[in-house]
Amino acid sequence: MSIDREALLQGNRRTLAKAITLTESKLDSHRQEAQLLLESLLPHTGNSIRIGITGIPGVGKSTFIEAFGLYLIKQGKKVAVLAVDPSSPITGGSILGDKTRMEVLSQQENAFIRPSPSGGALGGVAQKTRESMLLCEAAGYDVILVETVGVGQSEYEVASMVDFFLVLMLPNAGDELQGIKKGILELADAIVINKADGSARAMADQARQHYNNALSILHHNHFWQPRVLLCSAMENKNIDVIWEMVTQYHQCSLDAGVFHPKRARQNQEWMWRLVHELINRSLSHDPHAKAVCDAMQNKVNAGQTTPYIAAHRIVESLRQI
Amino acid sequence: MSIDREALLQGNRRTLAKAITLTESKLDSHRQEAQLLLESLLPHTGNSIRIGITGIPGVGKSTFIEAFGLYLIKQGKKVAVLAVDPSSPITGGSILGDKTRMEVLSQQENAFIRPSPSGGALGGVAQKTRESMLLCEAAGYDVILVETVGVGQSEYEVASMVDFFLVLMLPNAGDELQGIKKGILELADAIVINKADGSARAMADQARQHYNNALSILHHNHFWQPRVLLCSAMENKNIDVIWEMVTQYHQCSLDAGVFHPKRARQNQEWMWRLVHELINRSLSHDPHAKAVCDAMQNKVNAGQTTPYIAAHRIVESLRQI
Repeated sequence: MSIDREALLQGNRRTLAKAITLTESKLDSHRQEAQLLLESLLPHTGNSIRIGITGIPGVGKSTFIEAFGLYLIKQGKKVAVLAVDPSSPITGGSILGDKTRMEVLSQQENAFIRPSPSGGALGGVAQKTRESMLLCEAAGYDVILVETVGVGQSEYEVASMVDFFLVLMLPNAGDELQGIKKGILELADAIVINKADGSARAMADQARQHYNNALSILHHNHFWQPRVLLCSAMENKNIDVIWEMVTQYHQCSLDAGVFHPKRARQNQEWMWRLVHELINRSLSHDPHAKAVCDAMQNKVNAGQTTPYIAAHRIVESLRQI
Repeated sequence: MSIDREALLQGNRRTLAKAITLTESKLDSHRQEAQLLLESLLPHTGNSIRIGITGIPGVGKSTFIEAFGLYLIKQGKKVAVLAVDPSSPITGGSILGDKTRMEVLSQQENAFIRPSPSGGALGGVAQKTRESMLLCEAAGYDVILVETVGVGQSEYEVASMVDFFLVLMLPNAGDELQGIKKGILELADAIVINKADGSARAMADQARQHYNNALSILHHNHFWQPRVLLCSAMENKNIDVIWEMVTQYHQCSLDAGVFHPKRARQNQEWMWRLVHELINRSLSHDPHAKAVCDAMQNKVNAGQTTPYIAAHRIVESLRQI
């Protein structure tokens, strides 16, 4: 599977799609080829704003992304939409699986939409999405939107690979509280209350107040106080204000000298996570080491040994692989 | 250094103190001895309620712990107070360092107070506090209070070793928001607003409302909704209500079948954290592996290689140790 590197750098969408498919392949030879390609493309990456977008089903994520993406394209941007949905291989694709979603956006020449990859390889869905993001940047995309359903671990992963993390909410704060994962508000650089139109407007104002209170308790960050905005993706209202906020954030984080350090830190953390994932794989693939791990877990659970002693035994078994 | 195991099991405080000193020793031979002792004592551990208590300096932690501890002793309990304060070796001991603190409590026969250990060994201060906790349990202590300053990573560590995590706050919600670490409210099983006495009472009621709102957004847990209580440790008010809440929590989590599974999970997570810490130590102690790690971090930072490729190189270097 050979990729025309020049065509990719010139923004050819078919080549981009093919390159992403290569990174998603389960064949080791393809993985290696993909990594060499990625390494060679690194000097051409990083020139985008990476925005994570999450929200529970029903919040209007696709309508929002369509409206937001079309707005950005009108501003002369090239927009890529990637999805992280660890559940999709099982449920048949709860996000981006339906081809009728984002119908207008998907027809734009300056838009590129890619559904969620399936997991399995080292680093899982998150690793593949990171790679897709780099490939999109190499192909000249200015804004990368990474969509995730806000009901699992995926929002943490997405927050750890983007510059700006946006949480979509419904106007009715009471009803949807049950669906929000504990901790998700911690990750938010902004909360956008969607469907703030018609009779829901007053409720949306209340919800805004509510989330503003919550955020004022949670966050303190020397250069950015997370904001709560209202919008109606359906009626195309306030979409421009949201983009303005993102560009403000970008400027603030550049001025504060934290934009590039944050990306560097994300890469470092990701590298170490892969190191430990590789080691966990070694431990579970080697029959002797796996037996030691199982035995130690059982002994710790049964109160027969301490985690300290158990950890030493596991590391000894790793040395013998 | 030999420990009289029987004396420890009978609750001799000098033996307990000596055993804790053994676990804190920097000598490898002492560490090994301590681990064997701990392993042999495991059948006698686990019979306490472990309560983590955090709050910024000035919130009245020692006054609260003294009042709470004395109340528990009156109920016939044996109470141990341990401190986790990673900063104490540097600052000269910001908590529990002052001998005049908890003066009345420290004179009780059924109280045992131990200041923060210093870090350095595998697992750091948290590891030593976990070990002290087990030793106190073996010595018959019913309630273990683990105190931490709420300004670092230590509250996460404490939350991961206790059954119940209590966050102390001041009545003036506005003033002390800056001091609370983002995320700390996430960990709370209860927020207790201390110093809710005299003219601060009205403010405390407001703060209570405020935190109740915040917690209702953050948490959902099938057996426990975190509570916000007022108290005055100085005037000894509502201390009984706080203990009643903790026993309710204990009963609820037993009934829901989550009490022991939570402890088992804490042990498992701790074991794996030690495994990865041991591996990180190997990597940093071996000159070749360390050189590879440094080179890979630099290459990732400079955009010369991908985290994926870098992680593979690091794991290869580990194999050669």
